Amino acid sequence: MALKVYADRMSQPSRAVLIFCKKNGIDFEEIRVDVLRNEQFTPEYKAINPMSQVPAIVDGGFKLFESHAILIYLSCAFPGVASHWYPGDLTIRAKIHSVLDWHHSNLRRGTVGLVFNTILAPLFGLPSNLQTAKESEKLLMKSLNKLENFWLKDGSFLVGSSQPSIADLSLVCEIMQLQLLSETDCNRILSPYKRVVEWMEDTKKATAPHFDEVHEFLFEAQKRIREQTAKESSGKD
Amino acid sequence: MALKVYADRMSQPSRAVLIFCKKNGIDFEEIRVDVLRNEQFTPEYKAINPMSQVPAIVDGGFKLFESHAILIYLSCAFPGVASHWYPGDLTIRAKIHSVLDWHHSNLRRGTVGLVFNTILAPLFGLPSNLQTAKESEKLLMKSLNKLENFWLKDGSFLVGSSQPSIADLSLVCEIMQLQLLSETDCNRILSPYKRVVEWMEDTKKATAPHFDEVHEFLFEAQKRIREQTAKESSGKD
Repeated sequence: MALKVYADRMSQPSRAVLIFCKKNGIDFEEIRVDVLRNEQFTPEYKAINPMSQVPAIVDGGFKLFESHAILIYLSCAFPGVASHWYPGDLTIRAKIHSVLDWHHSNLRRGTVGLVFNTILAPLFGLPSNLQTAKESEKLLMKSLNKLENFWLKDGSFLVGSSQPSIADLSLVCEIMQLQLLSETDCNRILSPYKRVVEWMEDTKKATAPHFDEVHEFLFEAQKRIREQTAKESSGKD
Repeated sequence: MALKVYADRMSQPSRAVLIFCKKNGIDFEEIRVDVLRNEQFTPEYKAINPMSQVPAIVDGGFKLFESHAILIYLSCAFPGVASHWYPGDLTIRAKIHSVLDWHHSNLRRGTVGLVFNTILAPLFGLPSNLQTAKESEKLLMKSLNKLENFWLKDGSFLVGSSQPSIADLSLVCEIMQLQLLSETDCNRILSPYKRVVEWMEDTKKATAPHFDEVHEFLFEAQKRIREQTAKESSGKD
């Protein structure tokens, strides 16, 4: 029975897991959990992940959620996965855990808080908090600065590596979520960080053609959001 | 050269790392980084951890920060550590990663947001946000509920184990931070979660006498905070 990956391509950790499976030739079945339609709250999905979040996997009888834990598990459980994704060396592995842990409270929190409160919440009629959006953007900028000047200072990829690890894939998919912002905002936020932009391109190339294919969904959403914003904006004139 | 642990016992992840080292007989030197005196921002400490947070370790020439990454590293690098702290079994290890990842955006975020905005910020003349405190308490209660009804539903410890892992130690030290709240608030928050309270006691016992010894510092701070609150409150009458 093939691995089951429960995912929504609008979710950045879902995309990281999907790209990882495709790039590493893991035989899997993608099961869409449409978050905008609240499918994560169905009893069927709650039996997979009681936290009602995507992604989650089922491998035989084994259920797992939290994307970092999933990426580590897949790296160890599937012998075909190249060792650079999660090297066996104790200190390199420790650095990968360190950057993934840092990600939770910094880059991820900044990105999610900004994109949700400025774009997604208003679009879907949910309450948004502009103060949170502002604080999230500040945290995001601080995180991008740490990426540029600390995490990426040695080597092409994170933690001084010449090939990508699960940390590169996870963090780059996170930053891709900024594509849902307006083009102006997205450029304003990313353009000061040349090294980050370069590293994102390198990660994309290292996972081609799967990176672009899995992100098509995000770019379709971007197109619809920007068209709707333009329509609303012209209606106000 | 012994392992160096840079820590402040006011910080819950610092306490987890200290208790872990003591319990497992790891030879280490504790170096205090007084966060209330901003010692985490000195150039000397930034050379250890550029994120200016505690804890961090230096093992020979190897520097590492983020407490979960540190606990995993210590479990693997020091042969004297009992295997139940971070078992080699792939699926158990995956579940430990999953609960530790979940911790970041749930229990930790809830506890930190609540304790900072209701107790620490007012005490040290820092800006506090009551809306954030309210949202944090909601997230904390939701997290305690998930601990009670999902994470702790099988076995004495997390992920169905009969002995503690690094996840038990990390999460219990987090919840101990609620001791800084008033006695009324602390009881109101914790008392509905009988299983959580029982598990905290079990974790404390499994790491005795180090758990209590390392937490003495927190209880001294609790005493000072409660005395000051009582004084301010009587001054208002």
